[in-house]
Parts: sequence; structure tokens; C-alpha cells
Amino acid sequence: MPEFLRLLPPPEALKLFLRAFPEDLKPQPEWIKTERALGRITAGAVVAASPLPPFRRSTVDGYAVRAEDTFGASPSQPAYLRLAGEVLMGRAAELELRPGQAATVHTGGMIPEGADAVVMLEDTQRAAQDEIELVKAAAVGQNVLQAGEDVQPGEVVIEAGSLLRPQEIGGLLALGRTELEVARRPSVAILSTGDEVVPPKAEPGPGQVRDVNSYTLSALVEKAGGIPQRYGIIPDQIEALRQAARRAHAESDMVLIAAGSSVSVRDITADVIQELGPPGVLVHGVALRPGKPTILAVCGRVPVVGLPGNPVSALVVAGLFAMPALRRLLGFRGPSWPATLTAALAANVASVAGREDYLPVRLEVAPEGLLAQPVHGRSNLIFTLVRADGLVRIPAEATGLEKGERVEVRLF
Amino acid sequence: MPEFLRLLPPPEALKLFLRAFPEDLKPQPEWIKTERALGRITAGAVVAASPLPPFRRSTVDGYAVRAEDTFGASPSQPAYLRLAGEVLMGRAAELELRPGQAATVHTGGMIPEGADAVVMLEDTQRAAQDEIELVKAAAVGQNVLQAGEDVQPGEVVIEAGSLLRPQEIGGLLALGRTELEVARRPSVAILSTGDEVVPPKAEPGPGQVRDVNSYTLSALVEKAGGIPQRYGIIPDQIEALRQAARRAHAESDMVLIAAGSSVSVRDITADVIQELGPPGVLVHGVALRPGKPTILAVCGRVPVVGLPGNPVSALVVAGLFAMPALRRLLGFRGPSWPATLTAALAANVASVAGREDYLPVRLEVAPEGLLAQPVHGRSNLIFTLVRADGLVRIPAEATGLEKGERVEVRLF
Repeated sequence: MPEFLRLLPPPEALKLFLRAFPEDLKPQPEWIKTERALGRITAGAVVAASPLPPFRRSTVDGYAVRAEDTFGASPSQPAYLRLAGEVLMGRAAELELRPGQAATVHTGGMIPEGADAVVMLEDTQRAAQDEIELVKAAAVGQNVLQAGEDVQPGEVVIEAGSLLRPQEIGGLLALGRTELEVARRPSVAILSTGDEVVPPKAEPGPGQVRDVNSYTLSALVEKAGGIPQRYGIIPDQIEALRQAARRAHAESDMVLIAAGSSVSVRDITADVIQELGPPGVLVHGVALRPGKPTILAVCGRVPVVGLPGNPVSALVVAGLFAMPALRRLLGFRGPSWPATLTAALAANVASVAGREDYLPVRLEVAPEGLLAQPVHGRSNLIFTLVRADGLVRIPAEATGLEKGERVEVRLF
Repeated sequence: MPEFLRLLPPPEALKLFLRAFPEDLKPQPEWIKTERALGRITAGAVVAASPLPPFRRSTVDGYAVRAEDTFGASPSQPAYLRLAGEVLMGRAAELELRPGQAATVHTGGMIPEGADAVVMLEDTQRAAQDEIELVKAAAVGQNVLQAGEDVQPGEVVIEAGSLLRPQEIGGLLALGRTELEVARRPSVAILSTGDEVVPPKAEPGPGQVRDVNSYTLSALVEKAGGIPQRYGIIPDQIEALRQAARRAHAESDMVLIAAGSSVSVRDITADVIQELGPPGVLVHGVALRPGKPTILAVCGRVPVVGLPGNPVSALVVAGLFAMPALRRLLGFRGPSWPATLTAALAANVASVAGREDYLPVRLEVAPEGLLAQPVHGRSNLIFTLVRADGLVRIPAEATGLEKGERVEVRLF
């Protein structure tokens, strides 16, 4: 498909891309320690083997009682209960409450057999050394956590494809799951092409610039749970790119090629990607700014994304297309809502209809609310993004946005 | 200060806590490689030593021209320019344009001396082997990135206390800054107390529960850029807690103690923290649910937070108080806006006036917009948070929120 003959809308391009993934492409599972699982994605559902809490627990400091012993208790007609003992923390409640008895319990402590409610310490009075006075009836179940109230045995507590946050780690360990199966981190090859590109540690000569894309894309992949593998800077020669792309394709779960920005270089990139295997290039050119020269391909079992060489375009395109692909490789069934903030646009912004625009903005807190200030600079230079907090999407059908309009800001 | 004599509103409690930090408490700097700096915080401002881009670059494929040679060009009176050569990528533009000349340039290529504009390839025609025809005048500066347009030498490009995202890493490397000074990760001691608490790998006996807080808090600290140091499970004895707290205080930049939930245990915790040094305990009890028994202290140069033993309360309190303290230790001057989503509450929620409530909610996408569904379960059990996407703050002055009300959801 020759470049730009048909510029696809970004959502349609993404759909075409993801649909071409092999149907049986599943994340590779690996066992890891739960305490090291922060940020990982579950490879399978987690089923509770035992109830949580495993026994009835008190939620307050006070006395375990039989609720029926307290029925009708009032200031004029208090109920009196005999103290049968104390349930120590971390111990079984060895006593069994008989009618007319109460037992001292602490917050989190086990409720003894026979008891079905707990009255708070501050709602009681000592009537004698071993007797308490209640002026209010207790309801059955009051201040009692039932066994299995949090989790029942056999319950799916964490779905497959879930992100492991601090609370999931805590929940797993509460169930004694000290190891679990997570999706192996996909290995993502990153190639940067261009005769003008030199490594960051080099002093660029006239006409040369330092490699930025290898590192911004590595950081993005790392943040999203992949393992970036940098294949270095490839010169703008078809044979060199072919060799590097083949090696990357053979060794990785996904390949990102940040190609130079001139048309000839982009055509070479598309040709090389097409050679990597069927179904090959699915999208070549997207109705998007920045990011028009995007190439989306699946070659064999490996998704391949050709990104524009401009660092800002490369980051935007990677966010829109490579990150969903990576989430798919991870099996991540993430939240379905966009993580955006709503703000008022601080200035008029022009746009061309028929193309989605992504505008870098800086957020400012103003008395009237959050403001999205477009980051000036007509060109997509890397520090444009350093000065920005997020991107505002300008829909394809809009010819611009007006100052004061409410916009959704996708935070970086 | 005896517990709960005065329950402080959370914002006031946080202010008291942060104000007690030693004024000269600064993050310790350390040098690291820029390519490994994702998520770290800059220890000092980064100043550009050289301009970006370092030379004038073309933003398109086309011809570098002298704009004045094209003035008045039109379809009826085209301008003709003689091709003086081509500027190769990664090379100096060795030629100098004389009047009436043009030079082939590629996107990102260097603009030759004498030229002050670039015309796009598609806006030209070849008139002869070495001659092009223009039917439209070029404006000075058109399609030209000026040297220093992104960054000027001497400009502060990244402030001290900034989070390093993919774009900052790219910007630093574009400037040749392959190493930089970041804030050392603060070491955060985590102590879990309770006679009923056993390690996750143990099979709990009757009345025993597995340690959750050590791991949820470790994960939270890790996520926020600290180094968690687990001091294990401490029994509910003042001497054991005193020894562990002293060692943690001596070895760490911050100490978190997740104490049992019974009143006597909390009092022991406050006493032990008070002994660690002045100014000592600043806040004991906060008008907050969950999280009333929070203890906030600064002992010498080390902030110490006493958290409720309930895992949900511990995570909420750590988020509200320990995380701001950690950010302060890191010198992070983060964004000033809250990272929240707006949603409509899906059910009525009751609350007590005079106390801030944090309600776990699950987000759902509905035809009418985003819904915040309160996560059921009257008790703060760990899987309540597993089922939730974020927390809704119910202000102290409210006595509840109504179904359909717009609420801000703080995502986890």
C-alpha cells in the first residue's frame, strides 16, 4: 500500500492492527514472588482456597456477648453479664460463652463460640470484678466480622489480566499466596534509524543530532511493563535496516522502528517491514498529527510499528499504537475509562478537519478551575513535551477548539 | 497528647506534620545514568549548555531557497531557481546559496548558508535537470527550525524536584547529558505489630492472620520512589517495639509503624514514637475514616507515621500522610492538581459530619458517563480495595452524598 494513499482515522487504524494479532497469541506466564509483583499483570485468575477472615473477628475493643442476653436492656433495666474470661490476640477463643456470660475481646480478636455480637467497651460499665452492666441491647452480628465476609473459598478474587497494585499484593498474601503466575514482560526491540543520528555521548558534528528516540521509547516501554532492547542506530541503507530488523524480529515480542522523517527513508522502512512476514504492513499513514507517517504491521507473531523520527511524534504514536499492542501482549484487561483530567482550554487552537490532533498542554490551577495551556512552539521538539503535562485530543471533525472550551487532558 | 482528645482535620494534621520537618532537610543527591533515570526526581536544576537544535534544520523534504528569489512567484509568472546541490543527512551543508540558487534538503537536514526558507518538494516542479520552478512565493523562515528554537544555552530546561518521564530522559540525552544528579531514594522502615500476625507463608492458627501491611506498604513506598525496608512482625510488647523502632529510626529516612488496632496497642505505639526524639508526636488522632488512630511524628530528622493495623486504613493513611512526607524527602515539587476523575455517584452514601470519609469505589462506564459505584462491605477488608479503582473523599462538612452527585475519584 503506497504511503498516504489512504490515511486511516487513528481508531480504525488501531482496530485493524490489533485484529491482525494471531488469535492464539497469549502472554507467556512465569512464576514470581508475590512481594515482587508490583505492576505486573496476572497470567490467570486467582481463586481463594480459604475464607477471609478465616474466623469471626471483633471490629472493636469490648465484650463478646450472646445478643439474646441483652434484649430489652435499658438505662432503667440494665442487663448484667458475668465475665467468663479474655480472648487473647493471636490465640484461639478457648472458652465457649454460656447464657449470661461475656468475654473480653480486642479489635481483630477471635469471637468465642456461643457469642454472636460484641459490645464496645465504652458502652459498658463494670458492675463488679467479674460482671459488666449493659444499658442497651446488642444486635446479632454487631461489631462482628463473619468468617468469609471478605472472601469465600472458591471465589475468583483477582481476574486474569489484572494489574497488581499494593492492595492485590496484600490480598494475595492474606490468602497465603506467596507466589503467583504473571505475564512475562514482553521484550520490545527498539531501532533508531538515520544517517544524521549519533549516540547521546557523542559530540554531534555539523548536521548531526543525538539519538533521542531509542531512550524515550525505552522509558515508555519500561513504564508500561515491557523490557526494552535497544538495537542502536541504523544507517539509512536498506540492507543495514533489513539485517537489523530481521534480527530484532527474530529475538523480540514486538519491534519499534523510529525511522527518519524523509519520504524515501519511510518507504524503505515500510518495504523492510513488509519483508518480515505475513500479514505484513496493515496501515501506512494515519490521519493524525503528529504521527501521519505511522506504519502498523504484524509479521508472523510479532507486531511491528514504524514511528516517525521526530521525537514528539514518536512518543505520541507509541502511546496511541505501540502501548495498546504491548498491553495486548501482556494480556492486560485494563480499565476501560480514559485516565484524563478535564480542564478549560486557555487559548484558541486551530486544527484541520479530517485529522486527529494531539496538542501538548501544561496544566495550571486558576481560581476558576484547571486550565490547559497549549505549549507554544510550532515544531514538535522534545522540550515541548518536557514543558507539557499531557495531551489534548482534538477530534478529526473539529476545525479547532475555542478558548474556555472544556477539554480532556490525557496525562503523561 | 492523649489519643483522640482532639481529632484534627486531615489537612491541618498534614500541615502540622510537614512543618515540623527540619528546615534543612534536603534530598541526598546521587549521580546516575540518564538512561536509567525513569521515575527519579532531579536533585538540581538542569541548565542547557548548548542550543537545540544546534543548527538550522528543514522540517520537510524539499529545496532550501533564498525567500527573496521567490517573491512575486505565481502560476502566471513562476520563479526559476538553479539547483546548486544536495545537503546529505548527517553532513554539514557545505555549499552556500547564491542568488538564484536552491539546494535539495531532506527532513531534519541542515539548511545551507544563504538560504532562509525551504519549499516543499510537492510545491515545485522540475523545469530542467538542474532547475526548479516555483509558482508561489516562500516566506522567510518557512519550514525552517531555527538553531536554539527548542532550547537556548543557559536556559533552565528541567527544574530541581522534577519527575523524570520519558520526555525528560530524551531531552537530557538530546543535550548530551548522559548522567545527572537525582534525589537518592529514601529508605523507609516498615514495622508491622500484633501478637495475632504471622508471616504470609505461615499457616495461621486459630485467632491468627497473615501479615498484609508490611507488603502493601512496601509496594506503596516502592511505587512512590522510596526503598522499603521491612523490619518484620513485632509482638505487642512495649520493649520489643521500642527496640525495633529505635533500630528502624537509626537506620532509615522515614519509619512507618502499622500498629494493632486495639487502644492499648495504639497507646504503646505513641509512647514508643515519643521516645524516639523531639519534636516527637505532633498529631494523635485525625477526623478521618478510615484512619482515626493515625499518629504523625517527627523524631530528630526522621518522620514517623503510626498507621492503623487494618490494611485498608493503613493504605489510606499512608496515601494521605506518608506519601506527602516521602515526596518531601525526595524534594519532589510535583503537580499541584489532584489526579482525579469526575464521576457520578451510583448510590446514596451516608457520612458523619465533622469527619472526612474516604469511600472505595469501582468505576463503570455507563451511557450517561462515568459512574462511581461504592464498593460494598461494611468493614475495611483488603479485598474491598482490590475491588475498587479509587477513593471518593466525602468532605468533613457533608453528612453524606446523594446518588447522581458529581464526585472526584482519586485513582489508586
